[in-house]
Amino acid sequence: MIYLDNSATTQTDADVIKVMADVMANVYGNPSSLHGLGVKAERLMEQARKIIAQELAASPQEIIFTSGGTEANNMAIKGVAEAYQHRGKHIITTELEHPSVYDTCKQLEQRGWRISMLPVDHLGRVSPELVEQSITEDTVLVSVMHVNNEIGTVQPISEIGKRLRRYPKVLFHVDAVQSFAKFPIYPEQWGIDLLSVSGHKFHGPKGIGCLYKRKNLQLTPLLAGGGQEQALRSGTQNLPGIVGLAKATALAGKQRDAFMERCRAWKEWLIQRITAEIKGVRVNGDVTGNGGAPYILSLSFPGLKSEVIVHALEQEGVVVSSKSACSSKKEVPSRVLKAIGLEDEAAVGSIRISMGLMTTEEEVRHAADALLKVIPSLQQVIKVRKR
Amino acid sequence: MIYLDNSATTQTDADVIKVMADVMANVYGNPSSLHGLGVKAERLMEQARKIIAQELAASPQEIIFTSGGTEANNMAIKGVAEAYQHRGKHIITTELEHPSVYDTCKQLEQRGWRISMLPVDHLGRVSPELVEQSITEDTVLVSVMHVNNEIGTVQPISEIGKRLRRYPKVLFHVDAVQSFAKFPIYPEQWGIDLLSVSGHKFHGPKGIGCLYKRKNLQLTPLLAGGGQEQALRSGTQNLPGIVGLAKATALAGKQRDAFMERCRAWKEWLIQRITAEIKGVRVNGDVTGNGGAPYILSLSFPGLKSEVIVHALEQEGVVVSSKSACSSKKEVPSRVLKAIGLEDEAAVGSIRISMGLMTTEEEVRHAADALLKVIPSLQQVIKVRKR
Repeated sequence: MIYLDNSATTQTDADVIKVMADVMANVYGNPSSLHGLGVKAERLMEQARKIIAQELAASPQEIIFTSGGTEANNMAIKGVAEAYQHRGKHIITTELEHPSVYDTCKQLEQRGWRISMLPVDHLGRVSPELVEQSITEDTVLVSVMHVNNEIGTVQPISEIGKRLRRYPKVLFHVDAVQSFAKFPIYPEQWGIDLLSVSGHKFHGPKGIGCLYKRKNLQLTPLLAGGGQEQALRSGTQNLPGIVGLAKATALAGKQRDAFMERCRAWKEWLIQRITAEIKGVRVNGDVTGNGGAPYILSLSFPGLKSEVIVHALEQEGVVVSSKSACSSKKEVPSRVLKAIGLEDEAAVGSIRISMGLMTTEEEVRHAADALLKVIPSLQQVIKVRKR
Repeated sequence: MIYLDNSATTQTDADVIKVMADVMANVYGNPSSLHGLGVKAERLMEQARKIIAQELAASPQEIIFTSGGTEANNMAIKGVAEAYQHRGKHIITTELEHPSVYDTCKQLEQRGWRISMLPVDHLGRVSPELVEQSITEDTVLVSVMHVNNEIGTVQPISEIGKRLRRYPKVLFHVDAVQSFAKFPIYPEQWGIDLLSVSGHKFHGPKGIGCLYKRKNLQLTPLLAGGGQEQALRSGTQNLPGIVGLAKATALAGKQRDAFMERCRAWKEWLIQRITAEIKGVRVNGDVTGNGGAPYILSLSFPGLKSEVIVHALEQEGVVVSSKSACSSKKEVPSRVLKAIGLEDEAAVGSIRISMGLMTTEEEVRHAADALLKVIPSLQQVIKVRKR
């Protein structure tokens, strides 16, 4: 089986599984406990925090462990909203955000917040000028994702951050769930105040993630309780998950450059081959030069249905996604694809191919062969039916 | 090393580690994905949900997976508060609750809610009559823990639930983090609407738990996003954790009766031996007949300091806790011990011995020996100093 749905989730690295099993068996103390087992657990946790902080050129105390990317996004946005509501009740975000940002903003809208959902261009890019122009007296937060999960567009994060420096009262949150441990990210240098990370998107464990929170920034906790994580995220820390997250970060860091390079070549090759041989295909997202994330490729085949393509490819041993995993089972066309101007017909006939550290060239070639076999024959069926 | 801090956290069962490692390696699909790997993951998740539902004699759709007990408690209380605030803004709880309930209520208090923190008697029991008498026109929720984490008192949950049946607009939440998989619990029969569970308290994984939520009950989600868990808890499900939680539930269920019986005998024996041989010791919590949880024993040694006892016992190879793990590092006397009437001097000299499925009779005997060695010698030091 060829797994090309790495943006939904990744296969956990064997070394990650190993360290987690080891921690579960041997370092089971509660990091908050006074005794030796607790101290040992705490030490391991702080080592892990340091590794993740290094990846972001941040301080360990700027890393708050969460149960994943969704919690990090909710925590950042709701936490800032509650802590800074005296400054105003306006948030700027984009039409392209992941549901954990988009729906969190919608929840806040119901609680009286004003949300500016900025449009994106046909490649999925938000304009830094537009972000700046949208700032008003009562703007508290700007939230823009780094790499889009459906089409791979990379947003001009550092440019937005640079402009936001002129507005010290406006905080900047970045959902980096699809980019962390792949792209280098420098929150301090780029002017980012809050940044969300999820473990299972880069061969780390499910159920763990973290939020980078710049020092001296207020945040009302989402989870009250025992006061763990500087009282910003209560609950006994998931030490095996935390150690697994750090392990995956370290492993990805080592392979990053080679991974990005080979994905770039594969994506280019896939696009060339598919557009040359399949009629009516549309490549979604930013494929201009180094514009898009090399590990995500979104394709539309107007007239076909995503689910049908996904299942037909699976028959050929190739696993891809219709759109994002979390909206796979919803029958509506992707909000993201509509935001970049796709008609419903193209949007409902879209698939996402997403590569991971374990993807091989042979798999990519086999996937292309499968697509070139499956799509024309499905198109033929539609054609015959239409007669 | 003799680990008697099982109320802080437990050693993960070897079989739990094994199934988790197996799921991580082989069933890494996203349960929301359309393809075969996703379907396989979803099936495994639903099997796990069924096992946990059975333990509570509930339906699988009444189980919502969370990142642990703290999230379940926050989600239950804040979720009900937001969904039912039109009914009123009054919550009834007790002085004995875990910080994840207590501080969540305090957060709501700051948002304009009225919180009745009911007192408990000297054994830590809340009166069902008092709960009922505290209900007003605008009461939305009653939240009472099943087994207290510091002193082991078992609250009269089914009696409170019975009384609350007369007030169909008042919902009933139970924090069962310290009792689930040890005591039998029947939410429907007992009139419970919401019940919180944490995996790592009964040899399951850290970072996973669940909330039982009775059918047809509204709940505003804490985490917005991809719409997982009936849109009540977004975020890619932590499948290895979920399967580990179910495994631990099944394992604990099989051993429960024998475990409870031997703990009961050990607790009685410990109390007899310690009270007979140590001057000035106070046994905290309900030790009347079957009153308290047999696996938790709280002792106070007025004049001594918890941390000193904990470290002295550790020198003897015995690991116990000062109070609860999450407040271990706070220098204030335990709120729970003060609530049952302890003077500061007794409260700061308290320890908690908590047993788990892996505790053996030999370990309990050794722990008693260690206590009988350590405490008198510490008491002697204090006596000499006071002269």
